[in-house]
Formats: sequence, structure tokens, C-alpha cells
Amino acid sequence: MKILNVELGDRSYPIYIGRGHLEDKKIITRHIKTKTICIVSNTTVSKLYLENLKNILDGYQVVEAIIDDGEEYKNHDSLNHIYTKLLENQCNRDTTILALGGGVVGDIAGYAAASFLRGIPFIQIPTTLLAQVDSSVGGKTGINHLLGKNMIGAFYQPQAVVIDLNVLKTLDNRQISAGLAEVIKYGLIWDKDFFKYLENNIENLKQKDFEHLGEVIYRSCEVKAKVVSEDEKESGIRAILNLGHTFGHAIENCLGYGEWLHGEAVGCGMVLAARVSLVHGWLTESEFDRIKNLIFQANLPIEKPNISYEDFIGAMKLDKKNKDKDIYLVLQQGIGKAIVTNNYSSSALAEVIKS
Amino acid sequence: MKILNVELGDRSYPIYIGRGHLEDKKIITRHIKTKTICIVSNTTVSKLYLENLKNILDGYQVVEAIIDDGEEYKNHDSLNHIYTKLLENQCNRDTTILALGGGVVGDIAGYAAASFLRGIPFIQIPTTLLAQVDSSVGGKTGINHLLGKNMIGAFYQPQAVVIDLNVLKTLDNRQISAGLAEVIKYGLIWDKDFFKYLENNIENLKQKDFEHLGEVIYRSCEVKAKVVSEDEKESGIRAILNLGHTFGHAIENCLGYGEWLHGEAVGCGMVLAARVSLVHGWLTESEFDRIKNLIFQANLPIEKPNISYEDFIGAMKLDKKNKDKDIYLVLQQGIGKAIVTNNYSSSALAEVIKS
Repeated sequence: MKILNVELGDRSYPIYIGRGHLEDKKIITRHIKTKTICIVSNTTVSKLYLENLKNILDGYQVVEAIIDDGEEYKNHDSLNHIYTKLLENQCNRDTTILALGGGVVGDIAGYAAASFLRGIPFIQIPTTLLAQVDSSVGGKTGINHLLGKNMIGAFYQPQAVVIDLNVLKTLDNRQISAGLAEVIKYGLIWDKDFFKYLENNIENLKQKDFEHLGEVIYRSCEVKAKVVSEDEKESGIRAILNLGHTFGHAIENCLGYGEWLHGEAVGCGMVLAARVSLVHGWLTESEFDRIKNLIFQANLPIEKPNISYEDFIGAMKLDKKNKDKDIYLVLQQGIGKAIVTNNYSSSALAEVIKS
Repeated sequence: MKILNVELGDRSYPIYIGRGHLEDKKIITRHIKTKTICIVSNTTVSKLYLENLKNILDGYQVVEAIIDDGEEYKNHDSLNHIYTKLLENQCNRDTTILALGGGVVGDIAGYAAASFLRGIPFIQIPTTLLAQVDSSVGGKTGINHLLGKNMIGAFYQPQAVVIDLNVLKTLDNRQISAGLAEVIKYGLIWDKDFFKYLENNIENLKQKDFEHLGEVIYRSCEVKAKVVSEDEKESGIRAILNLGHTFGHAIENCLGYGEWLHGEAVGCGMVLAARVSLVHGWLTESEFDRIKNLIFQANLPIEKPNISYEDFIGAMKLDKKNKDKDIYLVLQQGIGKAIVTNNYSSSALAEVIKS
């Protein structure tokens, strides 16, 4: 087992990375100080792990709130289902929420924890690669609004993140690829050696080799923890974690949530961001090719879906990073470094979106 | 003009109390650092003050979100109306919300500010006595759930609270009385001299004498600011501000939101809490009579409405203060002091609810 710490003063918490954690009562309950537990999961994940998890939680009152599976259910109806389950079972502040699932479950469950009774504790138990390397760490919680992705939410940190590599056994290839998009992101924004490592090991990762998966999860969480510790509420550097997301959210929004997986949209978005960077000379042709190639090797889409320019730009204008009606983008400056800027050519952006 | 400060480190903010503030551009805009403003108000208050307010906000992009008037609209639909207005107008983090209205508007607008894009700034401009002395100060924001009052929300502090006494001119007597309930509360939990002052001046207050209203608003905000500074997130002493509210929320919940005003339910709730305290010998007969009498003089209900014991207790069990399935009550220990406790006789509670 490896342990990383997210340093945030009195809101600091550990990330446990290892195998078999879901069956380990000591690790699961180490950070539970309440008598009642509400497990939030979805219809897919609960079939696989809910009974096991409940078995090791003897001695606690356990409430379940199961939501539908998919980004299209990351909405107020699912959130309200959790509130209702909590209230029907007379849960009060003596309740910890366990988020058992992927990014959607983690984001909604975290937001339920942030907002129920103005805040109760929660623990992230991410069951997809994407959630393990990205969304479960850092305290971004929330839901989508019909008019924009992740528009409603809170910065609210968990008590702990418990990552069990074994759950990746049951994850299908499409979900592995979606998670690899966020893994590749860390190489692109922070660490060119890690990017090189990914180029060399992409086949091992796709084949779910546990040694390599453990390594990339650890290194990804390490970068994420460092960035979040420096800038919890995204007033500065944290925004680079959004590489590919301005484009990606627009794709998800225009196609309809759930059509593409979030990681797929981010993968494609990183290619589009790289293309804008290339036009500005911030990436060489060969760097651009390496980026596009790795994303392609990860079985992620590298071509923009068929969305009109107007719809695409309209969706991008809703991005949370924007100020003064300007669209802010995360762009590359070589491999391993990213900047957040509105200082790019809008015609270059238009060209990339129209191409 | 008087200024009080709520001391909360980097979340500290001023409360401005005076006359004519709503027409004073300097005071209204002193804490606005953004280019866009979203005014949240209700159908009643907006007719009276919205145009004036917009007139002094020239130079800003101004968006309006008007919700229906009444506690029964303190729900997700109203909240979502605000989100939609913000998104339709492409508002980003460069937006300040102005909450122009009573407690319902302040609570919903504050929660919209807390949750939109994971947090944007907001300013409270309370237009009812109740909101001026209580709900606009201290950062409790939120909405009701069908199964319980204020169950969903956040602790989220405003940039400033701007109290204009002049708005009380248009406030009807029932709303003044509702505000007086929270004013009386401060005397009961904190300051027996203030309670005495209220006994001596209740007629002046009911007749909206501005000198006396200004005095009680200042003294009420002073107590509230002090308690909130000590315990922002209600892990201890802040809970005494809930005197009368455990009973009051149950009344509102059982009768249906909006049937009684919040202040009316709290007024009656304080009589019920005093009655439980009396049974335990924590109030003398004469103290109990003074409490009941002042609440009666303020034109507030002192008799519990017709609600069955089971329904009443069921609603009280949902209170946020509760732990371990115990109902925690705020009870008097004489006039001017209150405690939060589960150490009371449940048969005394039953007797009071059944009487």
C-alpha cells in the first residue's frame, strides 16, 4: 500500500492506493467517526461491490442511495434522490457518505455531503481509473445543469480517498481509455518524463497490467495533490488541470451528456488544445504528433465530432475559467508545461473548431 | 450610519446599518469587484425597489432573477430559476449576486452564490426586519426540502450586509412582528437587559419608530456577529441561536411552508421551549409569564397550532442539531441564558407538545 497526503491545513487528507482495500475494514472505516453511513453508488457498481462493502460495515447503521449509471444522470434528480434517502432514514450530522463509484458518483455524492445539513463528512472510494487518478482527489464536487457541465457545486474535501486497484479488473476497455485521458493530461501539463513513460507503456496500461496501473495512479495523484495543495479553490495554477476540458465540456454539452464519456471528450479536447498551441508555435510539429499519437494509442477519439462552430463556441463561452466574456484556454508550451491564457489568436481557435 | 464587523479572518465583512442606503451608490457598490451583477429578489420586493437599485448600478451589466414571494417557494425550483438566469446571461465568476429581499430571498440567493460555479461573491440587502436582525448575518444559506426545512445549504459568507431602515416603512405589521420574534430571541439567549428594553419599548417597535428599530437592529446584529465569529459552522455555541427553531421548524413543516411566517413559528416555538424549561425549574413562573407576555405583545402566536403529537415529534426528529436519534433542544436557564441539551425529560416535552 502507498499513501499520499493532500496538504490543506485542517482539511488535509490521505489517499490510500493498493489492492484489496474494499475488503479491508480497517482502511475503509479508519476515517469514519459517525454511527451512520450512507453509501452512494450507481446501478452498475452496486451490483459488483455493495454487498461486500456492507458486510464489512457491521456495527454501523447503513443507508443506501443508488443512482442511475452515466453522465446524463449527474443532475439534480439524482442529487435529490440522495437527499430523500438521507431524510427518510432520519440521517443527521452523525452520518458519513461513502461515494462508491466513478466520477459521476463521486461528484454527486461529494456535493450531497457538502450541502446536506450544510455539510457532513464523506469518503471517496473511486471505482474507475478516471475517478482514481482525477475526480476523487481535490474536492471538486457538483452536478451538471441543462445549460452547462459542472455549473453547480462546491469545493468540499473528503476525509480520505481509498483507491483499490482490484476494481479495475471489472472495468471495460472504454472506461480504461477514458481514465488514460486524464493520466496523459498530467504528463502534458506537468511532467515530460511521465509522458515518455506513458508512450513506452501504453500497451501495458491498456491491458490492465496492475504494476503499471499502480504506478500511473500514484504519479497522477501525486501531481493532482501537489497542484490542489497550492491552489485549492482554483484562483491560479489549479486551472491547468483543465487542459482539454474547455473543449471537452463543450463536446459533452453539445452531444448531450453521456454520449461520449468524459475522458473521451477530454482526450479529443487535448488534441484540439494542442492544435491551437501548434498554430501559435508553442508546440513543434513533432511534439504535436506525439501528443495526438499517444491519445490515439489510448483508443481515444482525436477528431472533433460533428458540431457547428456556433454551438461549439457557445458552449465554450460557459466555461468557469472565463472572465469578461473572453474564453480562457489551457494551452501547451511544449510537452510537460501548460498555461491558462486568453492571449491566443481567436482566428486560430476558430480554424481548429471549424476544421 | 453604524457599522458592525463580523470577524471571520479572511471571510470577515461589515454590516452597514442606516437610512437611505438603498439609494447610495457608494455603499451598495463598495464591495462589488465584478463587472456583472445579478439581482435576486421576489415579486413583491422587486416592485418596490428594483428600478431604484438598477438606476444606481449604471456601468455594470445587470441581470435579474425574480422568484415568487413566500417560504413555500424556498425550494429547488426557485434556486434553479436563478441558475438558469445566470447561465442564459453567460454569467461567470466575474459576477456578484445582490440578495434584495427577506429571509427567503437571502437564503436562496446566498446558496445560489455558494453553489454557482462552486462559489461567486454576494451581498445581502435585507428588506424585512427578520432578515435584517437575523438571517442576513452569519452565512447560513440554503433551501427547504419537502421532508425538512433548511435541509440543503452551505455556510457561505457575504461580502457585506447593507441594512436600510427605510425599507421597513413598507413592511406590514405581520412581518414586523415576525422580525420581533428573532429580536426577542437575542434578549432571551444573551442579554436580560435587552429583554427588559424590549418589554419597555414593544409598543414603539410595533409602531415602527425608527429610533427604536435602529437600536434593536444594531443590538441584535451585534449579538449575532459575536456568536457567529466564535462558532461559524455551529459546532458549539452558535446552536443557541436556534432557540424556538426546533419547535418552529416542526410547525412550519407540519402546517406546510408559508402557512405561518417563520418568525411566527419561532415566536410560538420560544413559548414552547420556555414551557419545557419551566417544567424543569430552569425558569420561574414569573419569568415564563414575562416571556409569554412579551411574545404575545409582539402579536405573535403563543399557542401551538393543531398538529398531532406524532407528526410534531416526527418533524422535530429531523432537526439538524440532533445526534444519535436524540432530539436536542435549546432551553432557557433564566432570561438571558440558553443551553443546547438532550438532558431534559422527554415526558415533559411530550406534555408540552400534547397540551
